Amino acid sequence: MIKGALIDLGGVVFVGDAALPGAVDAVGRLKAAGLPVRYLSNTTRRAQRMLIDDLARMGLSVSPEELFLPAVAARAHLKAQGLKPHLLAQPALAEDLAGLAGDRGLAVVIGDAGEGFTYKALNAAFRALLNGADFIALAANRSFRDADGQLSLDAGAFVAALEYASGRSATVLGKPSPDFFASALASLGCAPEEAVMIGDDVESDVGGAMALGMAGILVRTGKYEPGAEDSIAPPPTAVVDDLSAAVDCVLTYSA
Amino acid sequence: MIKGALIDLGGVVFVGDAALPGAVDAVGRLKAAGLPVRYLSNTTRRAQRMLIDDLARMGLSVSPEELFLPAVAARAHLKAQGLKPHLLAQPALAEDLAGLAGDRGLAVVIGDAGEGFTYKALNAAFRALLNGADFIALAANRSFRDADGQLSLDAGAFVAALEYASGRSATVLGKPSPDFFASALASLGCAPEEAVMIGDDVESDVGGAMALGMAGILVRTGKYEPGAEDSIAPPPTAVVDDLSAAVDCVLTYSA
Repeated sequence: MIKGALIDLGGVVFVGDAALPGAVDAVGRLKAAGLPVRYLSNTTRRAQRMLIDDLARMGLSVSPEELFLPAVAARAHLKAQGLKPHLLAQPALAEDLAGLAGDRGLAVVIGDAGEGFTYKALNAAFRALLNGADFIALAANRSFRDADGQLSLDAGAFVAALEYASGRSATVLGKPSPDFFASALASLGCAPEEAVMIGDDVESDVGGAMALGMAGILVRTGKYEPGAEDSIAPPPTAVVDDLSAAVDCVLTYSA
Repeated sequence: MIKGALIDLGGVVFVGDAALPGAVDAVGRLKAAGLPVRYLSNTTRRAQRMLIDDLARMGLSVSPEELFLPAVAARAHLKAQGLKPHLLAQPALAEDLAGLAGDRGLAVVIGDAGEGFTYKALNAAFRALLNGADFIALAANRSFRDADGQLSLDAGAFVAALEYASGRSATVLGKPSPDFFASALASLGCAPEEAVMIGDDVESDVGGAMALGMAGILVRTGKYEPGAEDSIAPPPTAVVDDLSAAVDCVLTYSA
């Protein structure tokens, strides 16, 4: 019996700057059926405020409390630990991590820096790690569906580079971190087995949610590639064409 | 009974553009004792011809037959396999891999590109891998001692990034590849247990050589950091201050 839904954003609700066909409607049908929804995204390209504005332009009204982002989780983590961020991410993300002085030291914080992943920036992060900085990955995704329709390198590749060179392991704050799922579940007021995760990343979204006991629905949009469902065991609870089909599926199991 | 020596170059014979104190003399003492020497370097910053010129300027005369470099091994490998290189390395390296048309397809070949490791270049290599290109790492070193005295990211970090994102494994041609050691041993005319490797990289140089049955001497120059010898098991055959001390050690066991 499904009582709440977690939905990924990039590749599920939108690609680039445009909502996917039927996606906004599909969310509306979930809400109309009385099912609470939270958005659980690994995006680190935009600050929370910007993402909420972008979603509003696509016709989807989302409050900060409904939106779970790695940078917001990082802010809470750094504050609790007294750490100042050494940020390697898009400049647009900086506002979510601004004003953290940190009296206990530095934490290298890696997001999807895109063209900002220069040798110089990566080497500076490497040296900070060698000097004892904490090591936080906002996300560790391998790739994403880029604006030109092809897959492009995501933050995880650069996290792997720094892990290999430094011999250290990053703490991943975004999906598939159990803590990240848990905070969204707490906000939904659901036990894991009462919730479903809908995403296009078979590892971070579907595998991560299912490892916690949630249902996991893989959509064939965004970064989905044929056969992706075969890469996790157990396989996804369902594999469907898009968010609209996923919502049909959820509504069947919540009736 | 040691009958031949393999010597690493960067961090052992020279750092930056300057020979280390006593290094050129030390090589001379090995040769005077009748011990054949080969140089086994993972450097991918300069073409073979340039490196030989640089060594000559430092007072060390080295022939192409005495010098084992990943790019030279890559040339032979690509030629034998009919592959054309998609090269991600310093422009200076291109001449070692020029003129390989390749009728069987592409191979992504990663060296130490330094500032050439841009997001764009890495993403192009990633996409070539997704399209089925072979995947060759000239070397997979984690870091090197940079001109400013600090450690900097080496090619291995970027190999790890592409391995993680693509789910593929690179074939490493340089140290610690057994084939790379084997070709230098064949040139020395020594069985592994008759040869010693002298290097500053505890993994690639010392661990790699010892895995083949050679003696491995770690020098406390170049990228050496205190305690490095504790990171491999069994530990290095010897840990000494520099190449000169390593040669003293070798001459004792070759007498």
